[in-house]
Parts: sequence; structure tokens; C-alpha cells
Amino acid sequence: MKAKIHVTLKTGVLDPQGKAIAHALGNLGFSGIGDVRQGKFIEIELAEADRAKAEASVREMCERLLANTVIENYRFELSA
Amino acid sequence: MKAKIHVTLKTGVLDPQGKAIAHALGNLGFSGIGDVRQGKFIEIELAEADRAKAEASVREMCERLLANTVIENYRFELSA
Repeated sequence: MKAKIHVTLKTGVLDPQGKAIAHALGNLGFSGIGDVRQGKFIEIELAEADRAKAEASVREMCERLLANTVIENYRFELSA
Repeated sequence: MKAKIHVTLKTGVLDPQGKAIAHALGNLGFSGIGDVRQGKFIEIELAEADRAKAEASVREMCERLLANTVIENYRFELSA
């Protein structure tokens, strides 16, 4: 089973990487750029075949390691 | 219009961040962890309302700034 995880900064948390991208795009001549936010996208191959167990496991991975839940949100989907 | 962009390492390109995550998950007691890959997830707000123009613009942003197309793939979707 494969987990696809998105970790994004919570609304209101300053995103310097996003600001840098917006600034660089402006310098390259792109106009009409509004808010830019950068997050992480993590793909994990799991040996676990049971969906409920895999879901519980991935949730724990996010809470304990992958996301800093003080400032970040996470969401994930599982595929066979 | 909003663009959601995924930038991922191409297959075969070494991913040290992914390896570090896999190792850390093992240390935390998670078992059955296979390949782990870390990529970027970028959200950009665009003033452009025309979908075709927005798509061309985002493609150019990816090619010129957001992805290193030698080692990275990108894909994106647009939403109103």
C-alpha cells in the first residue's frame, strides 16, 4: 500500500519559502502572482495491506515525525 | 485561479531526504516501511482567469523556476 501525504503550513503562519518563490516569479516577469505557499509532499511505500491499520499507522507517522502540528496541517490518501 | 503544483524527484534519482525519513520512522518503531520519496507541493494564487493562459503560465513557471527538469518531474492542476 502506498501513502501520499501533503504537509502544509497552517493559514496565518508566515511562509518565507513561498514569499521567496513569489518574489522570484516577479523578477522573472510573471505578473498577477498572489499568495504562494510551499509545503511538502511525501510518498511512503507500506508493507501493511490492511487499509484501516495502514491509515492508523500513517496518521501516527504524521503526528510524530512528518508534520509539526503546531504550525502545519497534514492530509493523506492511501492507494493499493 | 489557483494552481496546485507537485514537484517530485525522477525515478532513479537518489533522495536523501526520503532516506532520512525512512530511517527516522524505523527508529521510532514503525515497521514495513519501503521506499520513501519527498517532494514539494506549491500552491500559487493567480490573477489570470483564463484557464488556457493560466496553464501556459504555470507550465513556464515550473520549467523556469519551480522544478529542475534534469532531476525532477512536475505536475499541476488548476482550480477556480
